[in-house]
Amino acid sequence: MPPTPVILDCDPGHDDVFAIWLAVGNPALDVRAVTTVAGNGSLEHTTLNARIALSVAGVHGIPVAAGAAQPLSRKAHAAVDIHGENALGGPATLPEPTVPLDPRDAVSLIADTLLASAEPVTLIPTGPMTNIAALITARPEVIPHIREIIWMGGAVDRGNITPYAEFNAWADPEAADIVFKAAQSKQAGLNITHQALVTDEVIARVEAVGNATSAFGVQLLKFFCKTYAEVQGMPAAPLHDPVTVAIAIDRAVATVQRTHVAIETKGEYTAGATNVYLLDQVKGRDMNVEVAMQLDVKRFFDLIVEAVKQLA
Amino acid sequence: MPPTPVILDCDPGHDDVFAIWLAVGNPALDVRAVTTVAGNGSLEHTTLNARIALSVAGVHGIPVAAGAAQPLSRKAHAAVDIHGENALGGPATLPEPTVPLDPRDAVSLIADTLLASAEPVTLIPTGPMTNIAALITARPEVIPHIREIIWMGGAVDRGNITPYAEFNAWADPEAADIVFKAAQSKQAGLNITHQALVTDEVIARVEAVGNATSAFGVQLLKFFCKTYAEVQGMPAAPLHDPVTVAIAIDRAVATVQRTHVAIETKGEYTAGATNVYLLDQVKGRDMNVEVAMQLDVKRFFDLIVEAVKQLA
Amino acid sequence: MPPTPVILDCDPGHDDVFAIWLAVGNPALDVRAVTTVAGNGSLEHTTLNARIALSVAGVHGIPVAAGAAQPLSRKAHAAVDIHGENALGGPATLPEPTVPLDPRDAVSLIADTLLASAEPVTLIPTGPMTNIAALITARPEVIPHIREIIWMGGAVDRGNITPYAEFNAWADPEAADIVFKAAQSKQAGLNITHQALVTDEVIARVEAVGNATSAFGVQLLKFFCKTYAEVQGMPAAPLHDPVTVAIAIDRAVATVQRTHVAIETKGEYTAGATNVYLLDQVKGRDMNVEVAMQLDVKRFFDLIVEAVKQLA
Amino acid sequence: MPPTPVILDCDPGHDDVFAIWLAVGNPALDVRAVTTVAGNGSLEHTTLNARIALSVAGVHGIPVAAGAAQPLSRKAHAAVDIHGENALGGPATLPEPTVPLDPRDAVSLIADTLLASAEPVTLIPTGPMTNIAALITARPEVIPHIREIIWMGGAVDRGNITPYAEFNAWADPEAADIVFKAAQSKQAGLNITHQALVTDEVIARVEAVGNATSAFGVQLLKFFCKTYAEVQGMPAAPLHDPVTVAIAIDRAVATVQRTHVAIETKGEYTAGATNVYLLDQVKGRDMNVEVAMQLDVKRFFDLIVEAVKQLA
Repeated sequence: MPPTPVILDCDPGHDDVFAIWLAVGNPALDVRAVTTVAGNGSLEHTTLNARIALSVAGVHGIPVAAGAAQPLSRKAHAAVDIHGENALGGPATLPEPTVPLDPRDAVSLIADTLLASAEPVTLIPTGPMTNIAALITARPEVIPHIREIIWMGGAVDRGNITPYAEFNAWADPEAADIVFKAAQSKQAGLNITHQALVTDEVIARVEAVGNATSAFGVQLLKFFCKTYAEVQGMPAAPLHDPVTVAIAIDRAVATVQRTHVAIETKGEYTAGATNVYLLDQVKGRDMNVEVAMQLDVKRFFDLIVEAVKQLA
Repeated sequence: MPPTPVILDCDPGHDDVFAIWLAVGNPALDVRAVTTVAGNGSLEHTTLNARIALSVAGVHGIPVAAGAAQPLSRKAHAAVDIHGENALGGPATLPEPTVPLDPRDAVSLIADTLLASAEPVTLIPTGPMTNIAALITARPEVIPHIREIIWMGGAVDRGNITPYAEFNAWADPEAADIVFKAAQSKQAGLNITHQALVTDEVIARVEAVGNATSAFGVQLLKFFCKTYAEVQGMPAAPLHDPVTVAIAIDRAVATVQRTHVAIETKGEYTAGATNVYLLDQVKGRDMNVEVAMQLDVKRFFDLIVEAVKQLA
Repeated sequence: MPPTPVILDCDPGHDDVFAIWLAVGNPALDVRAVTTVAGNGSLEHTTLNARIALSVAGVHGIPVAAGAAQPLSRKAHAAVDIHGENALGGPATLPEPTVPLDPRDAVSLIADTLLASAEPVTLIPTGPMTNIAALITARPEVIPHIREIIWMGGAVDRGNITPYAEFNAWADPEAADIVFKAAQSKQAGLNITHQALVTDEVIARVEAVGNATSAFGVQLLKFFCKTYAEVQGMPAAPLHDPVTVAIAIDRAVATVQRTHVAIETKGEYTAGATNVYLLDQVKGRDMNVEVAMQLDVKRFFDLIVEAVKQLA
Repeated sequence: MPPTPVILDCDPGHDDVFAIWLAVGNPALDVRAVTTVAGNGSLEHTTLNARIALSVAGVHGIPVAAGAAQPLSRKAHAAVDIHGENALGGPATLPEPTVPLDPRDAVSLIADTLLASAEPVTLIPTGPMTNIAALITARPEVIPHIREIIWMGGAVDRGNITPYAEFNAWADPEAADIVFKAAQSKQAGLNITHQALVTDEVIARVEAVGNATSAFGVQLLKFFCKTYAEVQGMPAAPLHDPVTVAIAIDRAVATVQRTHVAIETKGEYTAGATNVYLLDQVKGRDMNVEVAMQLDVKRFFDLIVEAVKQLA
């Protein structure tokens, strides 16, 4: 079977880096482009970090383009307490990237990539969905070229930035609302990503790979675990973003439930709540989203470790 | 120690009936008044059912008064699928109550009772908080006479009527907002009341009491379990409302966490979401609510069974 | 024809004082009670000022009771820039009132007064409708005793505190929403009250009355005109509140249009906007409010001057 | 002075047709592109009508591209009662357009045009701002190439579709919000466009031009006046959209006031209200919009008539 063409739209961020590595290190996927958005850090930082992630892994040839520097209509807030000032805390210094920046904006790169592909392409946004919302609205002719959208964002239960909102959904709820209304999507939210815990055993497995990528990755994971412990009181950090890529590689890594999801954009305290209707709450609503529910944790981390092994 | 004076404000409803019985059947409480509100059923039904609950238990002398027939500014919606058309499905026919209706409205009865008490009184609302919000606004001079408010409502995680709203909070979010802003409150929401599951063993224990109250109660519990199984797919119904009364009797029956809770009144999909701020979400917000977290389930049902034994 | 029984619920405030004087000085009305609410000033100031207004006018025997010190769910904001720190700027010192404070709260006084009346009573709220919303919710049995509600509040066009909200509506939109949904009301908003301009000629007419009330009133009017000139750039202050009383006295003083009015409570910038549906905007909506449109300005100020003449 | 380069983004609609004619018929402007959006009619109709407008006028060579078929996140509602089923009611049949459709989407055409221009270009949206919001978000690199945005939309006072919202603002408030937050804009709302009344004299002047454009235009104006009379009870239709083009031609045609404008996106009844802060309401808010206030009516219609004379 030929690899599945995918485009990553991300805001690295520690877990985004592993999402990139999983995508470029797994033979089932063909990464056609990487685009960036403000989220975990400023657009300047997330764009630099995306290029660093590819450079460290020794992967050249995939175009990287920068997208939205801020949400559609809200102010940008970087997740400094979790990801550090440069959005990639941990390493004492970050290397200069050897991967260049594509001169196009993110939406143009995604649209060009979609239109150039002989088959539909999977979009994997792992940050706020500002770029995807802009793409759908500005370039509606590309929608038929999207195979599916697999988003890291939202939650079935509680959120992590406010009681009922996860960070990516909270950062740009209007964008998530536009995407979920316009295109069939998959959502991997906190309910599943909090199953992907970076335990000491996981760190040891990554470390044992023994290449440059693994060495860099271990520094990221340790920092990530430290801030999650301090800020959220969690014994291990959840490796959110790669769950989406794992689903693109192997559907069996997660159970999904097709149901109705509505994004709150008007609440005083609940902006970005991803209302996942379950049981009698569904009452004939439109089944617009497949919500990822249960993660095969072992399979997930096996995929991570296998990918890192393939890299520089 | 003399019994704690309490006022029940309720919308019976199956679990409200057990809340009434627990309150009148336990020597630690002195029930000074029962008031009613539209919620699980229309005001007509909930008022009749409150009188029936007391009549079946053989408890006379506690004044019962009717309050708000609808929420502050939203339309009333009875929970017919859970509680039946008369809000007390199960028994083939409901008995005529022998307990009369007090001619006063609920707010006047509560205010009179508070002002007549030598010591502050605990308010236990187990339905939408319309009456309590009206009391606080219309009769602010009574606020110092309230010892505390222990409400059954809200949730820490998901809701039961919409993804993020519990029925009582959703039915009158404006009222809950007014109360939580005006007075220190305790909240027993779905996160704890779903621990109070009416298992077959619980039903057997209630049945074994062998008095008229127990016989009537078993009919209620069986109906309640049946509709919860059908509507929410739960193997046993949660006996929500008496958790509040149990806390009034014995603080040790539940752990609580003091934190900030904000009621959503403006959301498109999230009206009535009780945003319980935990961990870093609190960030210096006002600690206005004690949220009940863990239930001592055995102690809880022991209290229920002991109370039913004391009744007719 | 016997006088119409009325209750004034107000937040004096310069124009509220003239509303009180117009009501007590005109033989067509029988003022049964005056109640106060926070609005133009704090409850402490508005209550004191209501008592002063009656004392200056030499009117004793009408009970005055204090109501809500803050809106239902929002923070109180006094209109200090318009009415001054004590809500009655102008006179160098305010006299000690000789009219006492009734020990009852406003809602109890209104309810007692309504229930004691042989005929329905007109309610005239000239501030935020907090007390009236509390009354309707807490004491629903009194609703049939209300003849009509004539409110100074809202606007057909622009507002005065935000682009689309008038001060009384903005101060407690949730209260206005409750009242407009529960009871047929009349609204005298900025569109008509801005016709009641206190010109130099009006001041001269009041001054020419020559009694103590007129002397005090002239000081109020001059201050009011000065702040309106400074803050709103208006050449003369609009004497908002008495327009309601004038309508109670003589329907012919204003044209009205029956239509649908909806109060915005959820907007980010438009809280308190009184959406008056006109022309094709009505489209079968419920005709819940009579909106006052055109004022007979000469008749209005004749009523004011005639009333002041009757006072001390 | 060389002509000012402009791009029209429109939803024809009767008044949009006159906006197109004014722009292509006046030598002060150089129309580089015409793009379309759903609004007065479906995208299919508005796109066809834009091509018809140019064809009737005998203007070829300006690219026309279709944009958004629906608002960012709301459902589309055509203004059928005002503009008819095909959005251009009046003529018994509409001619086949001789002007072709550009294969690009609207955002791409606008971006290409902006980037190809040696000098900044004025954008003139006369419909919902969906395309402009998408442009700004998807292609932020083009923002420095925009000279200014002159929008027909909003109001200083009342709206025409709801009490406080004008149709274009109400149709896509989220888009207007994005644009007003991102780029300095001019707003020509109902307060000024309702001064541009199509009186019988205006119709006579257009008719007197005597060319094909004038003959077609008179049919449009008569239909437009008829529906405005029926639906809004107005004696003459307001020729909204060309006011923007007139301002681009000759600043002196309208007075403007620079102030803060905030778009309501969260209200229950007020979505799309353009809150124009005036006087003390401004209180240090960001002066993000120039609001057109007074129209030089004679100059405006002189421009219209002169333009029609230049066309086929």
